[in-house]
Amino acid sequence: MIIDCHGHYTTVPAAHTSWRKDQLAAWEARAVTPQYPDISDSDLRASIEGSQLRLMRERGVDLTIFSPRASAMAHHEGDEGVSRQWAEACNDLIYRVTQLYPDNFAGVCQLPQSPGVPIANSIAELRRCVEELGFVGCNLNPDPSGGHWTSPPLTDRSWYPFYEAMVELDVPAMVHVSAVTNPNFHATGSAYLNADTTAFMQFLLADLFRDFPELRFVIPHGGGAVPYHWGRFRGLADMLKRPPLQESVMRNVFFDTCVYHQPGINLLFEVIDIDNLLFGSEMVGAVRGIDPQTGNYFDDTRRYVEALDLAADDRDKVFERNARRVYPRLEQLIKA
Amino acid sequence: MIIDCHGHYTTVPAAHTSWRKDQLAAWEARAVTPQYPDISDSDLRASIEGSQLRLMRERGVDLTIFSPRASAMAHHEGDEGVSRQWAEACNDLIYRVTQLYPDNFAGVCQLPQSPGVPIANSIAELRRCVEELGFVGCNLNPDPSGGHWTSPPLTDRSWYPFYEAMVELDVPAMVHVSAVTNPNFHATGSAYLNADTTAFMQFLLADLFRDFPELRFVIPHGGGAVPYHWGRFRGLADMLKRPPLQESVMRNVFFDTCVYHQPGINLLFEVIDIDNLLFGSEMVGAVRGIDPQTGNYFDDTRRYVEALDLAADDRDKVFERNARRVYPRLEQLIKA
Repeated sequence: MIIDCHGHYTTVPAAHTSWRKDQLAAWEARAVTPQYPDISDSDLRASIEGSQLRLMRERGVDLTIFSPRASAMAHHEGDEGVSRQWAEACNDLIYRVTQLYPDNFAGVCQLPQSPGVPIANSIAELRRCVEELGFVGCNLNPDPSGGHWTSPPLTDRSWYPFYEAMVELDVPAMVHVSAVTNPNFHATGSAYLNADTTAFMQFLLADLFRDFPELRFVIPHGGGAVPYHWGRFRGLADMLKRPPLQESVMRNVFFDTCVYHQPGINLLFEVIDIDNLLFGSEMVGAVRGIDPQTGNYFDDTRRYVEALDLAADDRDKVFERNARRVYPRLEQLIKA
Repeated sequence: MIIDCHGHYTTVPAAHTSWRKDQLAAWEARAVTPQYPDISDSDLRASIEGSQLRLMRERGVDLTIFSPRASAMAHHEGDEGVSRQWAEACNDLIYRVTQLYPDNFAGVCQLPQSPGVPIANSIAELRRCVEELGFVGCNLNPDPSGGHWTSPPLTDRSWYPFYEAMVELDVPAMVHVSAVTNPNFHATGSAYLNADTTAFMQFLLADLFRDFPELRFVIPHGGGAVPYHWGRFRGLADMLKRPPLQESVMRNVFFDTCVYHQPGINLLFEVIDIDNLLFGSEMVGAVRGIDPQTGNYFDDTRRYVEALDLAADDRDKVFERNARRVYPRLEQLIKA
């Protein structure tokens, strides 16, 4: 079985995206929020079958851990109420996809984060998604300000109430930022990778996982810059009198394989322990084209992983068992 | 000849650092700036011979392109006048080192940047350092706000007056941020790498090098996350209808080899053209310890490059010729 831990619903029906525009316009105008549109099952099927599911089948991916489009979370837009409505609408749509294709999709939720609003206010939606909708995890945005980084680091105690809920519900979070308003950054080209690197360094510096030994994070996009600079991070841990990374961070942090060329994947698997790697593609997502150097899609990361010619047990871990271990509720779903 | 393109004077005499503290305290108190201390040549020699020069000799590095300590630039502290005084003091110290050890050091200057102040105001110090002090380049901070990224992207026209001066003087800039006040970021652990990635993506998106075909930047720390995600950047250029990276960016942008483990260096040389790579160590700098896995200093990057067993011509380019080409004033210094 091949599980992709990182897929976003980037091909939503147009009515969903239009509603978001209307919702924000209504908020700006202090008008009543428009009614959420009727989206039929056949609209949903059309939005999935011709793109995400077709590509999954072409690439031999059985199941995608599926979450709302990351760049569209835009926690900096509107206010807390706007963010809550939008998160609920996005999560409900994911839920419907998981119900239409229960063998192919497991849900991960967007949170109703909003700059300056306590993260505890996101627990109710996490709980709803996990307990009522059967979701297996969440995407946690370390920077709901949209590129201005106005929140405290992920290791700050202000995040702890949310971590308590994650541990109680036994769900991991993918650390994932969203669209940026700061013109210095490009969402998929720099902001995402920067956030990945930033989060890892925060984890390195603090005792978060001593406080929460069972808390688990997936850092996407192959861990940002971290594996490429693994020596730097090992050296910083040493110089800053922190415990070795294997003890202080890597019992709780996992990287996906969203690295879009063979040399990058080779490096990732060379430096990071196999138990910390989850197959992912970020498909349909950041980079949609075909690499002229290979003739294959840039984001067809299965090809790069297969080319490693891993031992059967390692291959199995990356493609399936690690995901089932990191997302215990996925394990339950599969067994059910 | 082995040229290290990335060394910072991190072992300055204590009197220099004390003066900085007093300078900032005087500024806060609206008092008169204290007199810069007398620092003797023997103080300077002591600060260099036991650390930087000793390590260069141990590692067989002949010449270091040497600039003031990057984290101490702190362009966000004080105001424009404070930043100018501090830049001048730091650059004068570098100049003295280059005069004491003309065979071993070439100067690169810190700029008197200050948040919100036009970059054109930094041209006079660049000119002084290049024309009067014989410096061969500068460090340009894309984020003088100290981690808040309040300046426009490096490709914005507001930077153009400075680029005109760089082209006129025929000097490159290393893109280098400084200390951060935003607690989300750690200077050497995330802010530096993020800035490298951010700058590259800015270059990818704009036509800066069409406007300035002779402008040259060195992106340090092995290009941040870029080589590891080279497929992502190639794919983004394609998806965003930008020219191939080799045409639009890599005629003007170079990466150093400040990557502190063998797999990272292997990847860097596998994906980036040899003509775009300049040997660098960032020594004495970010990571000062010894890697227990190898028994060697993390930042002894010469070992990793030597282990590649490059063809003689390629080795020569990385260790010497590329630096002499990217820094034409270094070429002149060496010839003189």
